[in-house]
Amino acid sequence: MSDTLSPLAPKSYPEMPEVAGVRLATASAGIKYEDRTDVVLALLSEGSQIAGVFTKSKCSSAPVDWCKQHLTRGRARAILVNSGNANAFTGKKGKEAVALSARIVSEAVQCPENEIFLASTGVIGEPLPAEKFSTVAKELVSKSAPAGWRDAAQAIMTTDTYPKYLTRTVQLGQQTVTLNGIAKGAGMIAPDMATMLGFLFTDAPIAAPVLQSLLSAGVPDTFNAITIDSDTSTSDTVLLAATGQAGGEWITDAADPRLGPFKAALQDMMRELAHQIVRDGEGATKFVEVNVVGAESDASAKAIALAIANSPLVKTAVAGEDANWGRVVMAVGKAGEPADRDRLAIWFGDVRVAVDGERDPDYSEEAASAVMKEDDILIKVDLGLGIGSAQVWTCDLTKEYVAINGDYRS
Amino acid sequence: MSDTLSPLAPKSYPEMPEVAGVRLATASAGIKYEDRTDVVLALLSEGSQIAGVFTKSKCSSAPVDWCKQHLTRGRARAILVNSGNANAFTGKKGKEAVALSARIVSEAVQCPENEIFLASTGVIGEPLPAEKFSTVAKELVSKSAPAGWRDAAQAIMTTDTYPKYLTRTVQLGQQTVTLNGIAKGAGMIAPDMATMLGFLFTDAPIAAPVLQSLLSAGVPDTFNAITIDSDTSTSDTVLLAATGQAGGEWITDAADPRLGPFKAALQDMMRELAHQIVRDGEGATKFVEVNVVGAESDASAKAIALAIANSPLVKTAVAGEDANWGRVVMAVGKAGEPADRDRLAIWFGDVRVAVDGERDPDYSEEAASAVMKEDDILIKVDLGLGIGSAQVWTCDLTKEYVAINGDYRS
Repeated sequence: MSDTLSPLAPKSYPEMPEVAGVRLATASAGIKYEDRTDVVLALLSEGSQIAGVFTKSKCSSAPVDWCKQHLTRGRARAILVNSGNANAFTGKKGKEAVALSARIVSEAVQCPENEIFLASTGVIGEPLPAEKFSTVAKELVSKSAPAGWRDAAQAIMTTDTYPKYLTRTVQLGQQTVTLNGIAKGAGMIAPDMATMLGFLFTDAPIAAPVLQSLLSAGVPDTFNAITIDSDTSTSDTVLLAATGQAGGEWITDAADPRLGPFKAALQDMMRELAHQIVRDGEGATKFVEVNVVGAESDASAKAIALAIANSPLVKTAVAGEDANWGRVVMAVGKAGEPADRDRLAIWFGDVRVAVDGERDPDYSEEAASAVMKEDDILIKVDLGLGIGSAQVWTCDLTKEYVAINGDYRS
Repeated sequence: MSDTLSPLAPKSYPEMPEVAGVRLATASAGIKYEDRTDVVLALLSEGSQIAGVFTKSKCSSAPVDWCKQHLTRGRARAILVNSGNANAFTGKKGKEAVALSARIVSEAVQCPENEIFLASTGVIGEPLPAEKFSTVAKELVSKSAPAGWRDAAQAIMTTDTYPKYLTRTVQLGQQTVTLNGIAKGAGMIAPDMATMLGFLFTDAPIAAPVLQSLLSAGVPDTFNAITIDSDTSTSDTVLLAATGQAGGEWITDAADPRLGPFKAALQDMMRELAHQIVRDGEGATKFVEVNVVGAESDASAKAIALAIANSPLVKTAVAGEDANWGRVVMAVGKAGEPADRDRLAIWFGDVRVAVDGERDPDYSEEAASAVMKEDDILIKVDLGLGIGSAQVWTCDLTKEYVAINGDYRS
């Protein structure tokens, strides 16, 4: 946790309701940090269903491998999350640490080991001292309670400057169901996924295959449309658990029309959590939306949007409040996607700065500069080729990012 | 030009010999900068041959388009280069500026316009006031001389902190031929190409198609194996001109065995100029070689090497002298190329820090940290899969990079 709160931190935080069937607890296991909590246990009532999406890294962490292996059953009783150590690139020791973690929790919870899900975030390459969980496991179970969402969001923070949590209430058929989510991010954030952990909980009666379908459909335009620094973590994990305790029959068909409002609320929450991660990007002082339209396809638009969002030169210009649209041209050009220089138009906010392949005839440096002084900045590009479009979100690149990451491990 | 010399600047500069048939001159045309030279004219004797490689940007600059168009003839009498304005994304005005520049120079040199080659570097999107060349064109021709290589290298600098120039002398059949090169770089540097300009001159009698073959063969492991910030310029240009004034018959076959030493010298010069660009990367304090071996193919090795070299987290760790090999693992993982976590080995310099997918059993933080304190740092990765290999070069990412680029245009 950083000492300095991001200038883009939320002005207010939501009151978090309970999610029937979910109990939370946090503890200080002393994995790496001193004087703070570093473990969260989320207990799920019997019969809970689970879905997940994970990093596409070829060097995924031991807990990611564990989750993927056991997700196929779709059943979960507990999620254990620690900060301070990612248990990534830890070889055989990593696998042993994961197995030990699951055993410790399963004994405390009294459930099968394969219904325990695990996530770790922090330093890569250090063996995770999983035996430390045994000193806190029973305490975590006994003190778990339906409240404590903010505490949970705080315990999973690494270089985050504020905890990230949201809630939505939505109608599902006859039932009113609750959807709570917590997340962490900060650095090593890029599609797919960001170095981020996200945990979403609902009391809705939705079966695992349907949960998975909803989660997978929601990710591309939310968690996989943000980038802090183009670096992709070994440990990215988003889990969505449903206890079914709101009542009503279980929904087992992803095409069930009752899912409409829930799907929208889930998507909305995922996008908002993703935005919160960007707003807490390491060293961030600006929240940037990159909106590409007129591309040959949506995929092409996204590649161009990411080239802009990941360009160090675009990001440093934003940090310097410099309406340097030439760097946006450069980023479009380097994406390697279909683009015609002479059809390109670029906006900062509402100010069109370039059109038909050159500076806008009505270009006003003053108007463009005024846009750059805002906290939230829109960079819009119209390629003028087709109807493909994409939106991604990023933050600026500041000296503070370099400071944070030049001295993180030590 | 920056006030602060890169700490990685050369300790000494070469004495530059003449290249028979090449005359140089510089002038202050007042394109953007005050109190410095900003134009170079290189005059080539009649019958000179030329080859070139250019940015792959989809938004290439007007001078790049001009050069590509006229390169097919392979004949050149002059190269005009300006700094301060890239004449990129300048639409119709850009094309007009290029045509006017060529006309001005062709009149002064008295040669066809299509034997004039042009390169521009600097701000994107500002119309280039090419008429300013007319005030200096005659002066440039009249004062041109076989010396002045350092002056020429200085006139093309933008955020470079030192001029980049090299020379090689080599046997070509019976003749001793000279090969001189100048280059500029600093930011917006990534394959393919870097934001860089490079101009290579020889008095060797080598015909344009052979020059092109030599240049194209040399680029992948030199200018296209460096990255400062992953951003690719609209303006990258490397031209290689041969006057033939050393004497001897023209070489017209790329397989001519007499070319061996020349090819090696050219390759060596291109690599060294590329290294000089990296050592002068914006804000650079470390020169980093990334060496990937054991990949499934050379292409796969290069993709992984570039993922490491472009990772902000790797680069900030290097800046912080932190032997954070976990971030190297991350970068290997995000490259999307074949990799097996449990076969991976990583070295910093001679110190193996990871092997078989986990921290080296003999890992010494002290030894690894000592490596990180050097100016030149080797990061070596063995994937353990095949025989593919690649080498790329980069620099660290410092607060100074952010400072330079947050306030460049204004």
